[in-house]
Amino acid sequence: MKKETGKLQDDIILLAHGGGGLRSKQLIRDVILSALENPILAQLDDGACISIPESELVFTTDSYVVTPIFFPGGDIGKLAACGTINDLAMQGAEPRYLSLSLIIEEGFHMRDMKRIVESLAKITRQTSVQVVTGDTKVVERGKGNDIFINTAGIGVRNPGTNVHVSNARNGDVVMITGTIGDHGIAVMSKREKALQLKTSLLSDVAPLWDMIEPLIMAVPDIHCLRDPTRGGVATALCEIADTSGKGVRIQETALPIKKDVQAVCNLLGLDPLNVANEGKALVICAQADADRALRVLRSHSLGKETAIIGTVVSQPAGTVLLETKLGGERIIETPMGENLPRIC
Amino acid sequence: MKKETGKLQDDIILLAHGGGGLRSKQLIRDVILSALENPILAQLDDGACISIPESELVFTTDSYVVTPIFFPGGDIGKLAACGTINDLAMQGAEPRYLSLSLIIEEGFHMRDMKRIVESLAKITRQTSVQVVTGDTKVVERGKGNDIFINTAGIGVRNPGTNVHVSNARNGDVVMITGTIGDHGIAVMSKREKALQLKTSLLSDVAPLWDMIEPLIMAVPDIHCLRDPTRGGVATALCEIADTSGKGVRIQETALPIKKDVQAVCNLLGLDPLNVANEGKALVICAQADADRALRVLRSHSLGKETAIIGTVVSQPAGTVLLETKLGGERIIETPMGENLPRIC
Repeated sequence: MKKETGKLQDDIILLAHGGGGLRSKQLIRDVILSALENPILAQLDDGACISIPESELVFTTDSYVVTPIFFPGGDIGKLAACGTINDLAMQGAEPRYLSLSLIIEEGFHMRDMKRIVESLAKITRQTSVQVVTGDTKVVERGKGNDIFINTAGIGVRNPGTNVHVSNARNGDVVMITGTIGDHGIAVMSKREKALQLKTSLLSDVAPLWDMIEPLIMAVPDIHCLRDPTRGGVATALCEIADTSGKGVRIQETALPIKKDVQAVCNLLGLDPLNVANEGKALVICAQADADRALRVLRSHSLGKETAIIGTVVSQPAGTVLLETKLGGERIIETPMGENLPRIC
Repeated sequence: MKKETGKLQDDIILLAHGGGGLRSKQLIRDVILSALENPILAQLDDGACISIPESELVFTTDSYVVTPIFFPGGDIGKLAACGTINDLAMQGAEPRYLSLSLIIEEGFHMRDMKRIVESLAKITRQTSVQVVTGDTKVVERGKGNDIFINTAGIGVRNPGTNVHVSNARNGDVVMITGTIGDHGIAVMSKREKALQLKTSLLSDVAPLWDMIEPLIMAVPDIHCLRDPTRGGVATALCEIADTSGKGVRIQETALPIKKDVQAVCNLLGLDPLNVANEGKALVICAQADADRALRVLRSHSLGKETAIIGTVVSQPAGTVLLETKLGGERIIETPMGENLPRIC
């Protein structure tokens, strides 16, 4: 092992850390492997060989570009683990394996690098998900923004699982597993210093499979699951209405919203329905299953504030209607873009 | 479908294209789906459900940050497909599914976006690989560099396949499937205008499974496969020597190198052994299998110039030795970093 050098001494990321040579190896060994080590990843091959006896896999990917990379309640590493774990969970799949691909800006601090990888590792340990393969690239200063992270994920689910965004049916009950808009507003409050947002609000970023698994066990016929991330609850419900060919009616008075979130939204002219969440799920099931689902969700620490917020109706198909506090009705639409860019 | 708007009119990428709203949908529908459509991707869910009867999977990921994004012989889209397909092929796995995650800089031209996706799609069609899931993020001007692409891949291989970077054995024959350094020098020649590199050299970027599959069929006991990308043949051989605990001796006179590549390397003080390839494989097998392997490789258009470049020896373990043209010996080492950053 004569070509091995000593412990990683560098304080910042250099272009050479992305070159595939010894500095790359040091970075991987001292920062990545030390936090994420497992027998598959330790092989450090260009791909991971995994054996899965079950036959139905779910495969997903997300790149994370959140800014700032550290925000109240989390950071880009925690987000990159939870976001992809949740995309698998929302398909009714048990998250098993992650890939981890980093695009780092030259000059990024090694201590931040370590903190982010450790934060991601904490989630993977907690959820028994393995990071089995990865990649590291470094781009010149000014050609990136601190760090971007891609995680792809593989999960397994029982063949015949019918959870799907297009599976909402007439009379179904629509629930949300807690308060909405926490993540987007927490990131925003950290970012927009000019607004002097003083709030103790934390992002809700959390891995949801631990709550979703008992739900699916108790209510195998859940119709739809969706984590309302970018674009918020509005976008997620519009997608469900659109792909299911149903209408969704929700009640404004039923929406769980923290006072701080509502206050910031009022200040900025935002609708909490459009603000991203990273630790909440929309759950849609038959009326007959609603009580059981509610009980299971509320018994989990992440789902204590689960609320029924609406119902699925036949008409007008493809439309989400909000019954307002004042007794009126408002059509909820998918926004053209994002009011809050780079919140995930 | 009243919320659908017309055809994508925008000439450039806006932050809103990454917001998860209607503009995101337009971008996905008009640029991504139109090029990559398949029944799984068309579901546009947050993850893809795939059924794989075989039980041994290979999972890999790579982010591509090459600059310039269009280079002689290819572009970042072609590279992002080939690179991940080749990582699977080098594990002896048939590439099946890709994810596609884009990090686009605001202001990027839509026509370049389309060209890149189409280029990636051409490779996936040619190789019968399906892009089944994806993600799109947009970052502000100056916070990225045109476009970064992550592809993760899933391949299947026969249980018991023994191809592994640590599996080189005494007496094995080392082959390379063609000329070395073409990719790195082609990218460099486009990038470094100051150097006035006038060369007709093309990147060798190509998907290799079509050549590797018949090789494995003909010679099931291939010991190692490695695509010498970042860090070139030197880095790949050092890794094989190191993880196999063997020595590798290669002959300088046996190395296939194009005149243009050698000329540019001489000019820039580079060693072609350290320069990246994106369409070549190092193949290591027993002496008894070498003729058959050579025959199969040379019968494929991508492997016509396959050459035996060295042998695996017991001592000195972990070391790669080059027998020079002049009859001397030189130790080949893993470089600290990359002489040519951002070539993949």
